[in-house]
Amino acid sequence: MSLTAEILSIGTELLLGDITNTDAQAIAQELGALGINVYFQTVVGDNPERIRRAVEIAKSRADLIVTTGGLGPTYDDITKQTLAESFGLPLEMHEPTVERIRSYFERRGGTMTENNLLQAMLPRGCTVLENDWGTAPGVAFEANGKVVVMLPGPPRECEPMLRERVLPYLKKFSDAALVSRNIRVVGLGESAMEYRLHDRIVSMTNPTVAPYAKTFECLLRVTARAETSEEARAMTEPVVEEICRELGDVVYGVDADSLESVVFELLRSRGLTLAAAESCTGGMFGERFTSVPGASEVYRGGVCSYSNDLKVNLLGVDAGLIERLGAVSAEVAQQMAEGVRRACGADIGIGITGVAGPAESERKPAGLVYIAVADAAGVAVRELHLGRGRERVRTGAVVSTLDLVRRRVLGLPVNPQDD
Amino acid sequence: MSLTAEILSIGTELLLGDITNTDAQAIAQELGALGINVYFQTVVGDNPERIRRAVEIAKSRADLIVTTGGLGPTYDDITKQTLAESFGLPLEMHEPTVERIRSYFERRGGTMTENNLLQAMLPRGCTVLENDWGTAPGVAFEANGKVVVMLPGPPRECEPMLRERVLPYLKKFSDAALVSRNIRVVGLGESAMEYRLHDRIVSMTNPTVAPYAKTFECLLRVTARAETSEEARAMTEPVVEEICRELGDVVYGVDADSLESVVFELLRSRGLTLAAAESCTGGMFGERFTSVPGASEVYRGGVCSYSNDLKVNLLGVDAGLIERLGAVSAEVAQQMAEGVRRACGADIGIGITGVAGPAESERKPAGLVYIAVADAAGVAVRELHLGRGRERVRTGAVVSTLDLVRRRVLGLPVNPQDD
Repeated sequence: MSLTAEILSIGTELLLGDITNTDAQAIAQELGALGINVYFQTVVGDNPERIRRAVEIAKSRADLIVTTGGLGPTYDDITKQTLAESFGLPLEMHEPTVERIRSYFERRGGTMTENNLLQAMLPRGCTVLENDWGTAPGVAFEANGKVVVMLPGPPRECEPMLRERVLPYLKKFSDAALVSRNIRVVGLGESAMEYRLHDRIVSMTNPTVAPYAKTFECLLRVTARAETSEEARAMTEPVVEEICRELGDVVYGVDADSLESVVFELLRSRGLTLAAAESCTGGMFGERFTSVPGASEVYRGGVCSYSNDLKVNLLGVDAGLIERLGAVSAEVAQQMAEGVRRACGADIGIGITGVAGPAESERKPAGLVYIAVADAAGVAVRELHLGRGRERVRTGAVVSTLDLVRRRVLGLPVNPQDD
Repeated sequence: MSLTAEILSIGTELLLGDITNTDAQAIAQELGALGINVYFQTVVGDNPERIRRAVEIAKSRADLIVTTGGLGPTYDDITKQTLAESFGLPLEMHEPTVERIRSYFERRGGTMTENNLLQAMLPRGCTVLENDWGTAPGVAFEANGKVVVMLPGPPRECEPMLRERVLPYLKKFSDAALVSRNIRVVGLGESAMEYRLHDRIVSMTNPTVAPYAKTFECLLRVTARAETSEEARAMTEPVVEEICRELGDVVYGVDADSLESVVFELLRSRGLTLAAAESCTGGMFGERFTSVPGASEVYRGGVCSYSNDLKVNLLGVDAGLIERLGAVSAEVAQQMAEGVRRACGADIGIGITGVAGPAESERKPAGLVYIAVADAAGVAVRELHLGRGRERVRTGAVVSTLDLVRRRVLGLPVNPQDD
C-alpha cells in the first residue's frame, strides 16, 4: 500500500503571490516518481495559528506531510516549532548542526548572529537532512503514524535537498521501485514532438512516457514501475531506444545533466577548445558554458563585443561590412566567430549577434539572431527568429548555439530536421 | 471589515506538478491589491469527493472562495456541479451562454459537440462572468454568507478574466486599499538586517514591515492599508524614510526593479560607460548587466579571460604577476579592471577573478574571489569569501561587483558597514 501525501508550503511571499510555488511542483513530481500519491497541496503564511490549523487538516487526510519554507533564522520562521509541537516533540539544540552553521560563516568570513543558532534547534529524535546549499538543515521524522519532512523554501536549496536527501529517506516507504529515464531534445518543439509520439504517449501505462517543455528544449520522461530498480530499468530500455530512433539527431542525450554539459564532454573527449564572441547575449553563452565544473579544460574565454567598435578592434570584423549590412547579419556573425577563434587561440570559435529587444535595432525586428561556429574546416551560420521577450530571445540564441557546436563537431546537418 | 479569501485550484495536472500554479499567484496579487487577505491556497485534483472536502474546509475559514479550473466541457470538469451542490444551488441552462458558445464555434468554424453545452449549465441566480478568451464562462454568486468566484484554469483565460471581470465584481466587497513599498538592500545579510530593525518589524501593524531574503541581497516590504491608495501611500512615507536612514548606504533603491537597473541608471544619468573583465564568472556579469533593456547606452562590452594567457594577451596583465601571486589575487583583479577599461575605451572597468569551485584552484579555496573597479581616479579592490556552491559563488561575485561600482560612483566607502 502506497503512502498518500500533502505538500504544505509555508510563506507569506507565496501566499501573497510575490513568488511562484515552484517547490510544490518539484516535490509533486518527485513524489509521483516514487509512487507516492499527492492528493492535496496547501499554502499558508507565516502565521502560527493558521499553520497549526493547516497541519491538523493535513494530518487528517495524508500519511506523509512535506513542508517547505520557514526554516530560516528569523522570528517568522516557525515551521519547526509548529510542526514539532503539533506532534508533541520537544526541540533540542543539535550540536553537529551548530558546528556546520558556525563553519559556514567562518568560511564566508561573515558574522554569525545568535539567531542563526535557532536553525540548529531540531525536533528530538529526528533525521537531520544536511543542507549543503544553505544554512538551514531539513528535518524528517515519524510520529503518530505519520511521516513528516521539512525542507527550506529557496528553490536552490529545496530542489537539491529533495533529490539528494529526501528521496533516499523516503525510499523505505515506497513498495515499488520507479525508474525514470530522461530523453533530452533540442531543435524540435514540444507540440511537434508530441505529435510524432502521440499514440505512444497516450497509450503506454508501464512504462509511461510524458513530455515536458523547457525553454527552447524539451524532455521526454520514460518511467517504469517494478519490484526492483533493475527490473524497472530494464523495462525502460526498449522504449528509450525506440523513441531515440524515432526522433533522430534532435536527441542530444539520455539522462544527461544539461545541453552545456553534453557539449562540454563532447569537446573535452576530443581535446577541442572553445572561445565565444557575444553581442546580444552579453555573456550568457560564456556564463552558461562555464556553469559546468571543470569548464576551463575546454573554454578559453571570449569577447563580449556589445558595441560595434569592439567588434572591429578586438575581433577584427571588417568595419565596412558592419556599415553595409549592419552588425546583425550572417556575415558579421561569421567574422566574429573567426575573429574570436583567432584572438583566443581556440579550436572552435562562436559568434552571436542579434536583436534581443524589446526595441528593434538597425530596422531589424526583435528576435532576429545570427549564430556562427568556426573551426579549422570553415564556418556554419544559422539565422534564428526567436520572437519576443528579451530573456527568451537571449536564451534561445544560447541554446541554438550550443546545439550548432554539437552538430558541427558530430558532423550532423546544420539545421535539425524540424524546427 | 475586509474579506478573507481562500484560493482553491482544481486540476490533477497542478497536483502532480505537470504545470506551475501561476493562476494562484496572479489571483493572490490582485486580491491583495484590493485589500482582501488571502490566508490559504489549496490545490486538489479532479476528484469529486476530495473537491467537496476542500470546499467544506474553505467555507469554514474564508469569506471568499476563488476557484480555478474544472469549468471545461469534459467529464472531469466538475467544479460548478460540486460548488453549486455544496451551497444548495441547482444548475440551470443559461440561454445567453448557450448562444455565446454556439457563435464562438461558428466564428472559429469548428464543430460544437453536445458536451460543450454543459458549460452553459450555471448555478441559479449567479452572476455570469463572460469569457472573451475561451468558451467556459466564469461564475460568481453569494450564498450562505459566502462569496464564490469560479474561473477557468488556462492562464490565458484566467488572467484577463481576473482583471476584466472579477476585480470589478469584487470592488463592492473591498473597503480598503493596500500600498506596498520595497526597500532594496545589498551588502547586509537578512539576519543582520533583521537584528537592526527587529523591534520595528515585530511591533508595527499598519504599515507592516516584512523582510525577504534574495541571493546576496535582501528586501524590506512596507505595506500600509487605508481607505484610499493615496492615504495608504502617505502612511508608508515616514516609515520608508526612517528605515532608509537607519540602514544607511546599504539601501540601493526604493521600489527599484533590480540592482543592475539601478547601477545602469546611475551610470547612464552621469554619461559613464562600463566594460567588464571576467574570469570565474565566465560572462555572468555582462549577461546580468545587459538584461536591462537599453544597456548598450552604458555597456561597451568586455573580455572573458578564462585562461591565463588571455589575461596577458587581451588585457595586458603582467605575466610575472600571475606567476608570482596566482591569477586569483587582488593585483590581478586590479590589472584586469585597468586592462579592460583601456581595451574597451570605457570610463569604468571591472575585474573579477576567483575560485568558483567545487574544486580549489592554485591552492586557494572555493569561494575566494577578488573584484576590482577602475576609473580615471584609480582602483578599488575587495576580497570576498563566498562559501560553497559554484552558482552561488558566481552570483555573489556579480552582486558584489555591481555594488562596488555603485559605491565607487557615489563616492561611498568600498566596504559596506556590515557584511
